[in-house]
Amino acid sequence: MDAGALEAFLRRDFGQVAEDFAVDRADAAGVTLRLKVAERHLRPGGTVSGPAMFGLADVAMYLAILSRIGPVALAVTTNCAIDFMRKPSAGRDLLAEARVLKLGRALAVGDVMLFSEGSPEPVARASLTYSIPPARG
Amino acid sequence: MDAGALEAFLRRDFGQVAEDFAVDRADAAGVTLRLKVAERHLRPGGTVSGPAMFGLADVAMYLAILSRIGPVALAVTTNCAIDFMRKPSAGRDLLAEARVLKLGRALAVGDVMLFSEGSPEPVARASLTYSIPPARG
Amino acid sequence: MDAGALEAFLRRDFGQVAEDFAVDRADAAGVTLRLKVAERHLRPGGTVSGPAMFGLADVAMYLAILSRIGPVALAVTTNCAIDFMRKPSAGRDLLAEARVLKLGRALAVGDVMLFSEGSPEPVARASLTYSIPPARG
Amino acid sequence: MDAGALEAFLRRDFGQVAEDFAVDRADAAGVTLRLKVAERHLRPGGTVSGPAMFGLADVAMYLAILSRIGPVALAVTTNCAIDFMRKPSAGRDLLAEARVLKLGRALAVGDVMLFSEGSPEPVARASLTYSIPPARG
Repeated sequence: MDAGALEAFLRRDFGQVAEDFAVDRADAAGVTLRLKVAERHLRPGGTVSGPAMFGLADVAMYLAILSRIGPVALAVTTNCAIDFMRKPSAGRDLLAEARVLKLGRALAVGDVMLFSEGSPEPVARASLTYSIPPARG
Repeated sequence: MDAGALEAFLRRDFGQVAEDFAVDRADAAGVTLRLKVAERHLRPGGTVSGPAMFGLADVAMYLAILSRIGPVALAVTTNCAIDFMRKPSAGRDLLAEARVLKLGRALAVGDVMLFSEGSPEPVARASLTYSIPPARG
Repeated sequence: MDAGALEAFLRRDFGQVAEDFAVDRADAAGVTLRLKVAERHLRPGGTVSGPAMFGLADVAMYLAILSRIGPVALAVTTNCAIDFMRKPSAGRDLLAEARVLKLGRALAVGDVMLFSEGSPEPVARASLTYSIPPARG
Repeated sequence: MDAGALEAFLRRDFGQVAEDFAVDRADAAGVTLRLKVAERHLRPGGTVSGPAMFGLADVAMYLAILSRIGPVALAVTTNCAIDFMRKPSAGRDLLAEARVLKLGRALAVGDVMLFSEGSPEPVARASLTYSIPPARG
């Protein structure tokens, strides 16, 4: 699935959340997903909230897996470890660079780096595991 | 800080997010925080979303730390590891039981168990680390 | 499997590592595994090393799962998140209290608390996921 | 600190463990640390044990931090999340590529990828946090 197909998938299966995101890139190396930061993603003080960063990492990995195995709507997150390292820049979108490290029959594992657009230093880092449902014949 | 003081703190410092939560219990053993599950917390299919569960665990631990050290508005989450184990029950609130395992000068560590109200088996488990800012003289 | 059966399993399948451990307790609530701390588990300064603590948590969870599903020698660790919170006491055994939080068809999840014998405050906390191989007919 | 200085540090401060390791590379991008796999690192069946992989990741990150801040013998691991993804190849050394993602005043965060020598696909992935002691005047 390329960037366009992933965005269409998001709109169909993630309903209103889909408009938060744009797929900037989808290729063999992984997916770059953009969080179009808006008022509803912020904590008092203007920082992007933890749940918004978690959600961005989670959806980015989900799409990175789908770009490899096709539109299987059923993979579920079983585990996430996330490090929050820097305050996101105010008034900037967040970019998530996700890559798949293992794509097994039952489990997929990958990691995600989060950046404020235009800043080279990551604001957060996450690793995620997804359970892949058995293929249905 | 007791349950009432923690709720007042939430309303003052967490703005509109505060109305998602209620403090069911706050004592020496920890804090039980309720997510009043509403439409905006759900994924298609009716399950509580990952970001909503992450946010519940994060706020529950935050309050468990505050209940021990008082209203220090500046502790930040540095790390979270979360396991998603079962699908939350549809139409039920989620309860987070948070306990502080270490309260050091610079770091606080704790864990949180998430339950659908009325179900004994946890839907998720999280451990979190908070950085505590140096005391300001 | 009770404490004796678990120890016999350890001796058979874990070879020379088995002598590091003793099963203090195995019941419906979980397993308590003892690391008989010796010179080879220490870092300079006399602290139990990180790998020794990791290994203790890993084996404790492994046995807690086996005590529920029987001697399946094939479950493998897929993920571990561990927080090191306090220095272990010098010259004390370490005790790991492991409990299974989810026992699914493909994955088992649990957590472990590590204590220096005689101290109420945990030195470390770990959560682990094991992959369970498909049943062989 | 370059590769030679890091190895000298290991020999001085890590005693007998030091001979398990060799520093293959140390530069601005990070450190590559080699585990010279021997009988004592193996589980029955010939796989490198989980504790040996954990130890390799932990020491690699430690050295990557030291290569940036100099020989501060006191940084301690506070957190590690590790994913075990593939069985290490039998009879091959393990290589750990560690990079520092954040070097703050109090905390350092980084990640490590583990490979069997000669294989492009990672056997494990870890993220680690170290606490850095306050500078002593």
